[in-house]
Amino acid sequence: MFSDTAAKKGVTFPKGFKAAGVKAGIKKSGNLDVAVIYSEEEAAVAGVFTQNAVAAAPVYVSKAAVEDGKARAIVANAGCANACTGEQGMKDAKHTAEIAAKALGCAADDVLVASTGVIGVNLPMDKLEQGVKDAVASLSTEGSVDAGNAIITTDTYSKACSTEVEIGGRKVRFGAIAKGSGMIQPNMATMLSFITTDAAIDSKLLQEALSEITEVTFNMISVDGDMSTNDMVTVLANGAAGNAKITEKNADYKIFYRTLKEICTGLSERIAADGEGATKFLTVHVTGAESFDAAKQVAMSVAKSPLVKTAFFGEDPNWGRVICAVGYAGVPMTPEKTVVKFGGIPVYANGTGASCDADALRKVMGQHDIVIDVEMGLGSAEATVWTCDFSYEYVKINGEYHT
Amino acid sequence: MFSDTAAKKGVTFPKGFKAAGVKAGIKKSGNLDVAVIYSEEEAAVAGVFTQNAVAAAPVYVSKAAVEDGKARAIVANAGCANACTGEQGMKDAKHTAEIAAKALGCAADDVLVASTGVIGVNLPMDKLEQGVKDAVASLSTEGSVDAGNAIITTDTYSKACSTEVEIGGRKVRFGAIAKGSGMIQPNMATMLSFITTDAAIDSKLLQEALSEITEVTFNMISVDGDMSTNDMVTVLANGAAGNAKITEKNADYKIFYRTLKEICTGLSERIAADGEGATKFLTVHVTGAESFDAAKQVAMSVAKSPLVKTAFFGEDPNWGRVICAVGYAGVPMTPEKTVVKFGGIPVYANGTGASCDADALRKVMGQHDIVIDVEMGLGSAEATVWTCDFSYEYVKINGEYHT
Repeated sequence: MFSDTAAKKGVTFPKGFKAAGVKAGIKKSGNLDVAVIYSEEEAAVAGVFTQNAVAAAPVYVSKAAVEDGKARAIVANAGCANACTGEQGMKDAKHTAEIAAKALGCAADDVLVASTGVIGVNLPMDKLEQGVKDAVASLSTEGSVDAGNAIITTDTYSKACSTEVEIGGRKVRFGAIAKGSGMIQPNMATMLSFITTDAAIDSKLLQEALSEITEVTFNMISVDGDMSTNDMVTVLANGAAGNAKITEKNADYKIFYRTLKEICTGLSERIAADGEGATKFLTVHVTGAESFDAAKQVAMSVAKSPLVKTAFFGEDPNWGRVICAVGYAGVPMTPEKTVVKFGGIPVYANGTGASCDADALRKVMGQHDIVIDVEMGLGSAEATVWTCDFSYEYVKINGEYHT
Repeated sequence: MFSDTAAKKGVTFPKGFKAAGVKAGIKKSGNLDVAVIYSEEEAAVAGVFTQNAVAAAPVYVSKAAVEDGKARAIVANAGCANACTGEQGMKDAKHTAEIAAKALGCAADDVLVASTGVIGVNLPMDKLEQGVKDAVASLSTEGSVDAGNAIITTDTYSKACSTEVEIGGRKVRFGAIAKGSGMIQPNMATMLSFITTDAAIDSKLLQEALSEITEVTFNMISVDGDMSTNDMVTVLANGAAGNAKITEKNADYKIFYRTLKEICTGLSERIAADGEGATKFLTVHVTGAESFDAAKQVAMSVAKSPLVKTAFFGEDPNWGRVICAVGYAGVPMTPEKTVVKFGGIPVYANGTGASCDADALRKVMGQHDIVIDVEMGLGSAEATVWTCDFSYEYVKINGEYHT
């Protein structure tokens, strides 16, 4: 579902969806910066939003729009986050939905809005209004790539995918575009993921599925430990596939759920791998924990440690920093029972360093994708967190004076 | 107490203390690496140790030595942490105390041991034994500077101080040496602080004072959020000043407490300012919080944010990253009530950016020492956390292949 061809189809792969991305002059670079995703028919909608107490205006507007379980469109812009913008920010976010609704011929409360970019600056509403109108005018079933490129910021590439499954004898399609990079962390910092499907599903069930899946996918990414003011994940399901509407947790629901989880997992991995300045993609897999929460806490402690992240940047098999981060995670652990592996090779066991094949270990550390296993030996719960290394480039990107 | 002259006196400023630092060949650099601090008379002792579940062998040995409330000496080495070294590590740590005890003519359980350096490597006991003997042989009242230099690792300088106060009509002296740098965080990561005083004080009261003071000083430092396996803070109080022994929380105790707190505060500030690769010293001061714990959580959230730390490295007055870190600290906050100031200049208020004198703000951001004030407007509790910025140099120091 993440092949180049599948990614190209993106959010317009499911029936009845159009998208567009246009240049409105909001990004300083002059690149694409306004996206619209549109469902020709009313769609069931679900959303998960940032838990930051300082949530941006578009988060409030979209939360309200999702409440009745139905929606038609999403308008997103990059270059300005419309966060910490007070009453004017709320007015602007609402007005953006109204502009799009008018152009699309739908109700304003059926339009979700999303923004990403600089905090504390008001939206340039003239530019945005023109951008929304241009995007609506150019909506097409080929518009997913432009829409994907319009929402990225410091991402090195736009994340997208699409896939088809059979549900109740019908072909059901799914698609997605997403952005991530800096500040990515549990609770989805500066992360936008828009998923579309032509499945017919009850909106409450859709929300339940998305909320559950977010816990073990988007909320398990850590790039730098910061959580942004603007994050959201949404799913629009317009029923155009004609499957019998999923209203209970039957076999159809299971296929739907599994497919949505695969999409969210794939997007999460790609978002983590494309963290600012990343040179390594790290999967921290904790097993044998007493509970999922304990496993997650240990995995996050390892994934967030700057010392671990710089060690992997330097291709240094420094298990001491990993076991140290396990030790201060704040959950019970027994050094003698704990095993740490890099790329499947045990590097720490029985309370001390494990003797291992230095050549094989060097090869592991030289790879781009590295799995760090932490076996706690205390129970049967597990958790996986995705992160990246910390490089000079990270400091450069975030140390530059932007304002 | 932190003047060059006072720092030079260090741990040997109080009566009845001697110290030495020697080269034992444990540090690859060949620099001083074994320190001994010795009290001619039995001293009351207190200690606070790492809370990392993976504590190093010397932590266990010193914890046991502190239990009876009395001690005579501290042996510390840099270059090898004796952490994650299993049973051999415990034997080596105990044996180190025995070697020192024999040379000094005291009981082994009156000797504290401390190590800092590489994790997962056994102590080179031959070198260490010779080093301890050499250090004991060269103990002097002029030895504090050498002892201080023997315990540093990636620190750019040894932290030390000394001061004199009057308690009950007697001159009472205090001195200290400390090391910090990488991994410095609450619960005192890779941090060693050895404090001496000739005050006479009950050991239980001394422990109570040190534990309390550590909560608001050493545990309020954050350099990179990691907590080490080897941290400890100790105080030796040998009573040589001849003051009436402090056995209750009277006026004498208050002077003692205030002085100890000043020392711990000054050492904490210097340790944070000398974080690996630091170019800025940042004081995060949270006021108006509902509780100390809430204030600390907010201050730590700001101080640990890599986005905040890289912004200050770039001298970017990016209040958006600060308010964002306040927002995800996990404690109640009201954006409209919160005020953020950089160097006393309001940059965020009423839910949005505050208009301010750009020249004055630029001047603040260009300084080495910067105070970040966060006023929560919710209560009367406050907390101060010290940290430093995140630079290219941090990545370089920690990304180099050390093993």
